[in-house]
Amino acid sequence: MRDELAVSAGFVLADLDPGSTPGFDGDKDDAAEAMASVADELAELQERLYADGRDREGRSVLLVIQGMDTSGKGGILRHVVGAVDPQGIQLTSFKAPSKEEQAHPFLWRIRNALPKPGYIGVFDRSQYEDVLIVRVHDLVPRSTWVRRYGQINSFEAGVIEKGTAIIKVMLHISEDEQKARLQERLDRPDKNWKFNPADVDEREFWDAYQESYQALLDKTSTDEAPWYVVPADHKWYARLAVQQLLLEQLREIDPQWPAATYDVEAEKARLADT
Amino acid sequence: MRDELAVSAGFVLADLDPGSTPGFDGDKDDAAEAMASVADELAELQERLYADGRDREGRSVLLVIQGMDTSGKGGILRHVVGAVDPQGIQLTSFKAPSKEEQAHPFLWRIRNALPKPGYIGVFDRSQYEDVLIVRVHDLVPRSTWVRRYGQINSFEAGVIEKGTAIIKVMLHISEDEQKARLQERLDRPDKNWKFNPADVDEREFWDAYQESYQALLDKTSTDEAPWYVVPADHKWYARLAVQQLLLEQLREIDPQWPAATYDVEAEKARLADT
Repeated sequence: MRDELAVSAGFVLADLDPGSTPGFDGDKDDAAEAMASVADELAELQERLYADGRDREGRSVLLVIQGMDTSGKGGILRHVVGAVDPQGIQLTSFKAPSKEEQAHPFLWRIRNALPKPGYIGVFDRSQYEDVLIVRVHDLVPRSTWVRRYGQINSFEAGVIEKGTAIIKVMLHISEDEQKARLQERLDRPDKNWKFNPADVDEREFWDAYQESYQALLDKTSTDEAPWYVVPADHKWYARLAVQQLLLEQLREIDPQWPAATYDVEAEKARLADT
Repeated sequence: MRDELAVSAGFVLADLDPGSTPGFDGDKDDAAEAMASVADELAELQERLYADGRDREGRSVLLVIQGMDTSGKGGILRHVVGAVDPQGIQLTSFKAPSKEEQAHPFLWRIRNALPKPGYIGVFDRSQYEDVLIVRVHDLVPRSTWVRRYGQINSFEAGVIEKGTAIIKVMLHISEDEQKARLQERLDRPDKNWKFNPADVDEREFWDAYQESYQALLDKTSTDEAPWYVVPADHKWYARLAVQQLLLEQLREIDPQWPAATYDVEAEKARLADT
């Protein structure tokens, strides 16, 4: 899916149909089947990555998930990340910064959450909130957030240089689909807790958010860490797409089982004596 | 499974067959089926727990997993914990204490890893290592570890009082089964990385570990937080048993969807206007 979904020069967010399914012409059942068919491969690649990181020198992967409210970030965590061995996952959900976090540069808490060698780090929201909600609501001066695109690019270049592959995903939903999903949260008592009145207020700023997303796609989609914009009006497609992006990245890394650091035959003999 | 597996007065570890399957008379396939049949219920209970914890006042669960090397802790994490939404899990794997951890009382790092309201905390090894490996290898004076049983009980009583249910699981394998599992790690190149020569050395201390386990079962199996000793020579049984223990605990807590903290009808009207 990388080729179909990667942002390149001239990409226009408004031109991408959130209901489309680039690179996949099946339906919901086909998508579930496609996901199941590679589950074992994904599990083995993840375990190889983990094993290879045991010496604290292996590669790691960072999956960054952004998207408007109700775009399906939680579903990605449950159905894609949740299908991977939890021992190999470092999941961080970034909320509004705490007082301690606010006292540090905006990348401080991000740096602290980077995946260790062998791990798949997952960011539910990320450094990009600092050029999204912050920009839309003027939470810092313009001169500050303007600088952040470059700071993020430098930061990510350093992370990549140290061996972490970064997969940046924007879940792209339509304004109407968001309305329907918020409506569902109001209609179903078992979903009421997911609804926040502020979510309705934020809809006033829909266009400003889309502009801010367009700006960050323009400025932070780099060769080493391109953005992937995933049409997300169909949850089943978004899940398949993110799983595929993760799988393709792990295939590229192609981690190998580490060689034994001890004498296997000697250990067999020692074990036999016990 | 709680009734079948809970440790009560007079329990003798050496009398429990690690190859037995208390409370279950099916085979491997039956166990997989039994696990699948309650997956949805478990998922819903977990989500209710999480939803109820949103106000930072709800209950939480702490699953403590102990066992000899190769007893299947990793498999429990992968197959039982991994079946739960990762957003609701706080997993901590305790290794040999770092320098910073050593500079604090032994419960310091444990306290820092306790689950927040709404979460299921999972400890892969735990405070109990401080009366296991520490006792077997005389890592602290006897007078120190002797005191720890009472300290752990007091600590756990406080944790429970604050709303966290504790499920303490010992995965119980036989010495022969451990040998077979270590042998497999030596025989299979894709498992070599899991083997550590120290694992063979530790087998010399098998009896001392069993004695230490017996002692902690005697001293720290309390009414509010009993130990469950899970025969673990059959991995499929151990996974089923731990899933059931978690399920039974969540059923007892019976978390409810929180009521809306806003006016649902008013919000519907506001949403309709957007």
